[in-house]
Amino acid sequence: MVRPRVTLRDVARKVGVHPSTVSRVLNSSTRSMVTAEMARQVEEAAHELGYRPNPIAYGLKTNRSLTVGVVIPDLTNPQFPPMIRGIDDTLTRAGYATIVANTDNDRARERVILDRMRSRRVDALILGSIRREDMLERDEVPVVLINRANDVSGVTAVVSDNEGGIGQIIDHLVLLGHRRIAHVAGPQFSPMGMACYQAYRSTIKKLGLPINQGLVEHCEAYSRDEGKRALSLLLHSTERFTAVVAANDFLALGCYDALKVEGRGCPHDFSVTGFNDMPFVDMMDPPLTTVRIPQYDMGAAAADAVLERMNGTASGPKTIVLPSTLIVRASTAPPS
Amino acid sequence: MVRPRVTLRDVARKVGVHPSTVSRVLNSSTRSMVTAEMARQVEEAAHELGYRPNPIAYGLKTNRSLTVGVVIPDLTNPQFPPMIRGIDDTLTRAGYATIVANTDNDRARERVILDRMRSRRVDALILGSIRREDMLERDEVPVVLINRANDVSGVTAVVSDNEGGIGQIIDHLVLLGHRRIAHVAGPQFSPMGMACYQAYRSTIKKLGLPINQGLVEHCEAYSRDEGKRALSLLLHSTERFTAVVAANDFLALGCYDALKVEGRGCPHDFSVTGFNDMPFVDMMDPPLTTVRIPQYDMGAAAADAVLERMNGTASGPKTIVLPSTLIVRASTAPPS
Repeated sequence: MVRPRVTLRDVARKVGVHPSTVSRVLNSSTRSMVTAEMARQVEEAAHELGYRPNPIAYGLKTNRSLTVGVVIPDLTNPQFPPMIRGIDDTLTRAGYATIVANTDNDRARERVILDRMRSRRVDALILGSIRREDMLERDEVPVVLINRANDVSGVTAVVSDNEGGIGQIIDHLVLLGHRRIAHVAGPQFSPMGMACYQAYRSTIKKLGLPINQGLVEHCEAYSRDEGKRALSLLLHSTERFTAVVAANDFLALGCYDALKVEGRGCPHDFSVTGFNDMPFVDMMDPPLTTVRIPQYDMGAAAADAVLERMNGTASGPKTIVLPSTLIVRASTAPPS
Repeated sequence: MVRPRVTLRDVARKVGVHPSTVSRVLNSSTRSMVTAEMARQVEEAAHELGYRPNPIAYGLKTNRSLTVGVVIPDLTNPQFPPMIRGIDDTLTRAGYATIVANTDNDRARERVILDRMRSRRVDALILGSIRREDMLERDEVPVVLINRANDVSGVTAVVSDNEGGIGQIIDHLVLLGHRRIAHVAGPQFSPMGMACYQAYRSTIKKLGLPINQGLVEHCEAYSRDEGKRALSLLLHSTERFTAVVAANDFLALGCYDALKVEGRGCPHDFSVTGFNDMPFVDMMDPPLTTVRIPQYDMGAAAADAVLERMNGTASGPKTIVLPSTLIVRASTAPPS
């Protein structure tokens, strides 16, 4: 059965207001002009009558799609879902939908995804994936970077305080008595990986500890396998160390795997630290000492920045740094 | 600088083919009509020239948005990201984008989300969230259910073999010597929770074991806190048992928490099992015995089913059951 299309006017009649009031409620940029109670009544009436605005026609008229593209390496990496929720909860409240795409850090795939996002006329892009060396085409839509060092000038970026986090980790290890501290580093193409590596080097240097390229092994990916491979290499090298700072929790769990294979204990033989505080690392054997990143808040901040840009209320490009917090658990102890 | 708009004709000229060939390559429903090599050449030329089809105009002409809406309870529940990737990888290959929304199992939010998805003219919906009692409005766009019991007739659903999984878990416990097996059950509004609960009851009954409502505690949510609360209640009840079958891994980890609080050991005092095989439950203390669900494959199957429906090649509603696998780790042992 085809029912006659419900119009804005029908909704207005049901609530007993002027159609322009209904229009204001249903348009995210003018909703704040009516009271919350009126907005609720209008939305309820619109739902009951089955009123459906037509965003495709709206998009053609205003050249807006009311969608924001979010590009990340891989949704199944546990640090991204809370970020995406922070983004989506914030954008949903403003009437936007989020289209998420995964690049797997593959440059060809990344290129295709960005082309598609643009051809879909997304109103803005939040990028958590683009490699350091890539250029952003900034002329088209507002772009905000998330979870990567702000290595592109003139672009707003939301990051966590990686330098502070790595500093806190190393301070903690030094207070426990460690002097020779190895680093299982992130991929060299990753801005975050490089930021952590630089923070490791500068902190070690500042504290006057032995610094030595032989104590660093770069991984090809943020995976448990790569963490295992990297620490195995370090364990079989001639370098001596008592603690390992991994650039993220996945890599740290790979370090656990490597120690198990070699019959070495954590924290008895080696202290191990992570980065990110993924869900459940508090329940690992041993519970992982790591740095907590406010992922949800980062997502919300990136969405707010994108909304400011789209509404024309942004004051200019900025870097928003959210604090990170050391979480001490049982994977760190004095050297034996 | 505003450059003149690049047309289909420009791309065709660069590759040296007829514009209709370019059109075929750039339209997912006709791409298979040209060779992979030709498709590659056309896509490369389109990228180099910066050709952008206009999907908003296309959508208005064809009344299609080339988007599929995916509705789940919560992206930060680790079982969903692999499913979403399976969906998105499959839909992306076919030229569709995925819009994911989270309901938090809140009915009001769910209603708003479905209204919005429809008003955005999504071409299809994949629903992993709708509560049992809700009706689906099936007249509008193709709908496929994922990760919920197929309790709506006439709708295609992709599920894992929960009954088989719970059966394998209980068989394993019985072989170890357990006879009194408790169940920390999922929420009663959840179709999956109810399916697991029914499977628990029927398996226990089939094996002739004591069945007793006092051995079952339903949770309000699939959370670690609820698992903890439920097992604490059971431990303080007059019922005796030596093993706990939790309806998912979160709940099982909550059981670990409850045992810790009560000073009881797993698996020494109680065997505990989960469901889902979330990332890293192999590294918990103790590593969790659980059931592996092929989440990525379920997502891919749901996307395939939606594509078949949209292309008109679906043979009719069906239930696609993917196998689940028992993973035995250290949280289960003979009763002491």
